Amino acid sequence: MRLVLVGFGNLGRGLSRALIQKASFLRRSHGLIPRVVAAVDEFGAAVDEKGLNLTRLLKVAGKAGTVAAYKGGKRGKLALRVIEGVEADVVYELTPTNIKTGEPGLTHIKRAMWARKHVITSNKGPLVVAFGELDSLARRCGVEFRYSASVGGAVPVVGLAKELLAGNEIREIRGVLNGTTNYILTRMSREDAPFEVVLREAQELGVAEKDPTLDIEGIDTACKITILANSLLGMNARLKDVKVAGIKRVRPEAIRLAREAGQTIKLIGIAKRGSLEVGPKLVPLGHPLAVGGTLNAVTFELDLAREISITGFGAGPKETSSSLLGDLIDIHRTLGG
Amino acid sequence: MRLVLVGFGNLGRGLSRALIQKASFLRRSHGLIPRVVAAVDEFGAAVDEKGLNLTRLLKVAGKAGTVAAYKGGKRGKLALRVIEGVEADVVYELTPTNIKTGEPGLTHIKRAMWARKHVITSNKGPLVVAFGELDSLARRCGVEFRYSASVGGAVPVVGLAKELLAGNEIREIRGVLNGTTNYILTRMSREDAPFEVVLREAQELGVAEKDPTLDIEGIDTACKITILANSLLGMNARLKDVKVAGIKRVRPEAIRLAREAGQTIKLIGIAKRGSLEVGPKLVPLGHPLAVGGTLNAVTFELDLAREISITGFGAGPKETSSSLLGDLIDIHRTLGG
Repeated sequence: MRLVLVGFGNLGRGLSRALIQKASFLRRSHGLIPRVVAAVDEFGAAVDEKGLNLTRLLKVAGKAGTVAAYKGGKRGKLALRVIEGVEADVVYELTPTNIKTGEPGLTHIKRAMWARKHVITSNKGPLVVAFGELDSLARRCGVEFRYSASVGGAVPVVGLAKELLAGNEIREIRGVLNGTTNYILTRMSREDAPFEVVLREAQELGVAEKDPTLDIEGIDTACKITILANSLLGMNARLKDVKVAGIKRVRPEAIRLAREAGQTIKLIGIAKRGSLEVGPKLVPLGHPLAVGGTLNAVTFELDLAREISITGFGAGPKETSSSLLGDLIDIHRTLGG
Repeated sequence: MRLVLVGFGNLGRGLSRALIQKASFLRRSHGLIPRVVAAVDEFGAAVDEKGLNLTRLLKVAGKAGTVAAYKGGKRGKLALRVIEGVEADVVYELTPTNIKTGEPGLTHIKRAMWARKHVITSNKGPLVVAFGELDSLARRCGVEFRYSASVGGAVPVVGLAKELLAGNEIREIRGVLNGTTNYILTRMSREDAPFEVVLREAQELGVAEKDPTLDIEGIDTACKITILANSLLGMNARLKDVKVAGIKRVRPEAIRLAREAGQTIKLIGIAKRGSLEVGPKLVPLGHPLAVGGTLNAVTFELDLAREISITGFGAGPKETSSSLLGDLIDIHRTLGG
C-alpha cells in the first residue's frame, strides 16, 4: 500500500514512528506492506515512489521543521500537487482542525477522492463542516473513507458501532470525549480545587492548551458528537445544531455534593435522533462514563445489547496511531488484502 | 441467507425473536434477508426450505417443548441429518456447553464445516476442547467461523481485538467474564454480607444456577480466558493450562479492607503469552474492570493504544442475540453482501 502523509505534526510523526516500529508485525499479521511515497507539510514536500526512509524523514524534519529538508525535497505549498500527482493508494489527511471552514483538510480530502485515492483522516474540521458531502463523494468516487481517529483518539468508537454492534439500533450515544476537560474535572474532584487553579496547572503540564477555549467551552466535544450523530445515527447535523455548555461554571462544591450522593460531574456529549447536546452532567460513580484523568469513554444505548461502553486514551500521537493504523488495516481487508 | 438453528433453548429462542423484530432493519441497513430453513433440538426438527414462520415456531415449541411440534416437524435425533442434508448458508450452533467433551456441539460444528456451511456459535465447549482444530478446519473448508457470543455475551470482545485494534500487539487481556460471580461480589461489597448468604439469594433470584460450581469456582471464566488466549494471542491452550481459583473464600472483611484502600475485589481472568490465570484480584475503584452487578468487562493492554476497555451485559438471550446477529452481518459483509 502506497501512502501519502499530508500533515507532519504530532500525528504524522506518531504514525511514521508506528509504521517503522510495526513494519514486520503488519507484514506478518496482516500481509500489509505500507510504503510512504510522499509526505507534505505547510512548507514543502518529500517524494520518493520507492518509499521514503521514515527514520531519516523524522530526523531531518525534526531538525529543519519541514519535510522539505529530506533529500530531494521541495519547498512550497505542494499539498494539492502531491495529493493529485503522486501515485498512491491511501492519503492520510492529518493537518490541524479548523472547525469553521474545514480547510485545508476539506480540499485535501476532496481532491484525494477525486484522484481515486482512499482517505484516512484524524481531522475533525472537514467532518464537522461537510460530513454528508464527503461521505457521498467517497461512494461516488468508489473510494474508502475512514475517520476513526477523529473521535476518541485510540478508542475505536465509530468502528465499534458500525462493525461490531451492527445488529443493533442505536438509541443514544453518550460520551466523555475531551481529555483536557476530563483531566480538569477529575483534579477538581480529587483536590477540591477551583476550576481556574486546576486549569492553570493543566496548562503548565501541557495537558491544556494556551488557548483552551475549544476544550473547556465544550466545542471540541460538540464536534465529536456531531461526527458521531452523522456517521452513526444517519443525521445531517452541523455544529450549530448542538446545544453546548462548557465546564467553566462547575464549582468544586457541586462536585463534592455529587460525590456525597454517589455521583460525579463529567462533561458529556449526548446524541440521539433529534437532539444533540454537550454539558456538565451527573454520572453515577462506578458507571463506565465516570472515568478519570485524560481518559475518554463512550456509552451506546442499544435495542438488543442494552448498554455497551468503551474506554481508553482519547489523545496522544502514539495512542492515536492505533486508530490510524487500524483504519489502514481495515481498508486493506476491505479491498481483499 | 439461509440459516439452520441447532439448539432451541434460551439463545435459539432469543435469536429467533431478534430475527422477527429486526427483519426490516436488517434488510434496510445491511441488505440482509435471513431465512431460517431449519430448527433442530434434542427431540426433533422443523424444516422448510421456504423459511419457517418463526412466530409460529416459537409458539408451538414453547408449548410442546420441542420444535418437532411445528407443522411437518419430525421427532428423533436429527441434528446431523439436518446440518448435512438441508441446503443452507449458515449453521448456528447453540446447544448447551459441555467443557469436557465439547459435544454435541463439536460434532455439529465439524459436520457443518465439512458440508461447506459457515458456522456461528455461542458454545464454549467445542472452543475450549478443540479451538485449533476448528479454526484450521474452517480455513480448509473455506467457510467462515464466528464465536463472538461465546465470550462476553453482548460485549464484542473478540471482534474488538481482531478487527478494531488490529494494529496493536496485545500484551495482556484481563476480564470480568462471569456475571454470576460479579453479581455475588458486588452484593457482598454493598451489603457486607457473607458469600453463602448472597449465593443463596442469587439462586432464588435465578442469577445463580442451582449447581453454581462452574461459575463460582472460576471454571466458566477459565473457559473464556482459554478462548481469548487461543483466538487473540495465537496460543494453543487447553482448560487445564489455566491456574484457577474461585470466589468461595472471598470474605466481606477483605472487600471492606480493599474498599478502604480505594479498591475492590473482582474475579479476574488474565491471559498473557505463557500464563493463564483466574482468581479474585484487587481492582482500583474507578477502573473500567470495577463494574458492578452482572456486567462483564475486558481490558486489553496494547503496545500502541495502551489500554482499551469494554463493558456490557455478558448474558441474557436478547443481549446475546446482539453478538449472534453481529456475526451474521459480518459474514454477510465478508462474502461481499
